[in-house]
Amino acid sequence: MPPSMRETLAARHDAVRAALGAAGLEALVVTHLPNVFFLTGFTGSAGILVVTATAAPLLTDFRYDTVVRDMLEGDGGWPGGSLVRVGGAYDEGLAALLEGVEAPRVGVEAAHLSLGRYRWLVARLPGRPELVPTHAIVERVRVRKDAREIATLRAAGRLLSEVGRDVLYLAQPGPSELEFAAIIDYKLKSAGFARPAFETIVAAGSNGALPHARPGPRRLQSGDLVVLDFGGVYDGYCVDLTRTVCLGRPDERMRAVYDAVAEAQRAALAAVKPGVAAASVDAAARAVLARHDLADAFGHGTGHGLGIEVHEAPRVAPPQSGPGAPRSLELLETGMVLTIEPGAYVRGWGGVRLEDDVLVTADGCEVLTHVPRTLAAGERP
Amino acid sequence: MPPSMRETLAARHDAVRAALGAAGLEALVVTHLPNVFFLTGFTGSAGILVVTATAAPLLTDFRYDTVVRDMLEGDGGWPGGSLVRVGGAYDEGLAALLEGVEAPRVGVEAAHLSLGRYRWLVARLPGRPELVPTHAIVERVRVRKDAREIATLRAAGRLLSEVGRDVLYLAQPGPSELEFAAIIDYKLKSAGFARPAFETIVAAGSNGALPHARPGPRRLQSGDLVVLDFGGVYDGYCVDLTRTVCLGRPDERMRAVYDAVAEAQRAALAAVKPGVAAASVDAAARAVLARHDLADAFGHGTGHGLGIEVHEAPRVAPPQSGPGAPRSLELLETGMVLTIEPGAYVRGWGGVRLEDDVLVTADGCEVLTHVPRTLAAGERP
Repeated sequence: MPPSMRETLAARHDAVRAALGAAGLEALVVTHLPNVFFLTGFTGSAGILVVTATAAPLLTDFRYDTVVRDMLEGDGGWPGGSLVRVGGAYDEGLAALLEGVEAPRVGVEAAHLSLGRYRWLVARLPGRPELVPTHAIVERVRVRKDAREIATLRAAGRLLSEVGRDVLYLAQPGPSELEFAAIIDYKLKSAGFARPAFETIVAAGSNGALPHARPGPRRLQSGDLVVLDFGGVYDGYCVDLTRTVCLGRPDERMRAVYDAVAEAQRAALAAVKPGVAAASVDAAARAVLARHDLADAFGHGTGHGLGIEVHEAPRVAPPQSGPGAPRSLELLETGMVLTIEPGAYVRGWGGVRLEDDVLVTADGCEVLTHVPRTLAAGERP
Repeated sequence: MPPSMRETLAARHDAVRAALGAAGLEALVVTHLPNVFFLTGFTGSAGILVVTATAAPLLTDFRYDTVVRDMLEGDGGWPGGSLVRVGGAYDEGLAALLEGVEAPRVGVEAAHLSLGRYRWLVARLPGRPELVPTHAIVERVRVRKDAREIATLRAAGRLLSEVGRDVLYLAQPGPSELEFAAIIDYKLKSAGFARPAFETIVAAGSNGALPHARPGPRRLQSGDLVVLDFGGVYDGYCVDLTRTVCLGRPDERMRAVYDAVAEAQRAALAAVKPGVAAASVDAAARAVLARHDLADAFGHGTGHGLGIEVHEAPRVAPPQSGPGAPRSLELLETGMVLTIEPGAYVRGWGGVRLEDDVLVTADGCEVLTHVPRTLAAGERP
């Protein structure tokens, strides 16, 4: 049995406080809602958590009063937790709270605090406390999933696999891309997902050449190659799956591209283990596609971390520069959960993508999604 | 017939350039995706538009190459439009582009640029150009809808009304909140909406006391009061509707609270016209609820602007302080589109909310949503 929610939240707060101490900070203003959820279980659309050495008040408004009180009184309380109800604007409520915090230096989340909000707070709180930009304090704790998260992601992967098998069975000529996406979303919610993890992709024929195609009025036709990419949020955690099917008899080229992508996915899956750079997993998939003359057809990364957000660390992609850049050079660790989703896209022809979710384990990875990899649709798997 | 997309985009760029000139700026970095969509029609999940005196390049990545090229070559090109494909990180691509811009002072969107990104760009571009925080340059242009937007929002309102009538007919004891939410979402997509505008709310019985309840496993039961709040995105624009129904015979209290909320909604609708402060419309609803001893039961604002975002200016709410604060004191103008959605929430008992969407016209407002306001469900309206 995984630890209780209360024990789990306490461990997460300990890890965040340790990171704060290492950064020479006494407190952190958590404005990124996925981070607030991680530290409290709060799922509302507005809330700010302030973590200090001894307390962790959650600022929220009228709408969430009842929900937060129930959380604090029930099993899901967090260490030092309290509710601070914001009457007017959040910024004013936060400023008033920070005036009373005994901490000369308070971290803010630079990636999740707007320039405008930061400037307003600095003007409102002249010098006390000093607001110090920080980067990924909570995200670094989130990157390795704890026992409760792993249990949730395993359950979510099983559920998504059921939906995926159903979807492969239901894929056939007739409905438009939009209609079939509506059916997939209905299956996701009926299966128990709170919502799709992102806008479901149904991309038929040449639309499949757009990796992030939006479903449109085009009807699914016999002979179409169709990319189906969908995911769900279960108990606050995201899972993500892609299959590509042919509605009818695939031709030579479809088979060749499909087999190359499947081989690239196998190569990437085989490369996943602790101590390997995420960028090397990407390189493994890329090398296979290059060998099949499909290097230029694969423009996105091989995968991404999964958890409270559908795109989180680590990036499984070639190295980049910029603010959040060198993450793909980071080494994989046990407890990370990621997608492996190589693809090949040819303008005017279509595309193929295959995606599964994996948990990094001591000696490789555990695949969390189990849906046949087959070009054929319409058969009960 | 409304103006063409090309003419429409040209007029929007003119308005933004005029606002830039008034602010003493030569260019603007548009990082807020709804603003990018407004100025280009681009619907991808990553892209940055740079508007200069003579050009407006869109930075985007591999995934959107085909889509953007088709836009630029088709009817939807925008003045000075071009595609700049980002090879690596967006921040590096943006910095490289800004190095080549002939403008000493370039605006950035303070509300939509993170502190981290801003600091990185300033360090990367020491002094040239100077990056100047701006507030709501594009949003102020967006607040009054143009002819194409009004046509889209009217069509979206008609579609949502059809879905709403269907949903009232289908509401009956049996399914869980989650299952009924899945049915609503399926109806939205089947009707032609690209996606729900937000997570559909089905809140039965005492769950209705949470204004932003998430649907759960609770089954709809005979005698339940159920809050149904849903919306859709149609051609990039959001519409939003709430009805509250009783599954069976409503008791006295349900009738009394329902009638009070309906009266508050009528009062707010009657108050909408150009030249009136948005806060006065809120006050009109609030006065009615206070008269029925429900002042404390109504904790949120009476409404919000609708458009590319499901919550945008103006706020129809009491005045607040903070960075984006005094907007509810702004006067309504023709062409604004807003929701009117008073409610009453009683812990342990449940809630009632009624919501419709309106366009501010020369002499009042045009209601865009047409669904019977009735406590009874299950009848074909």
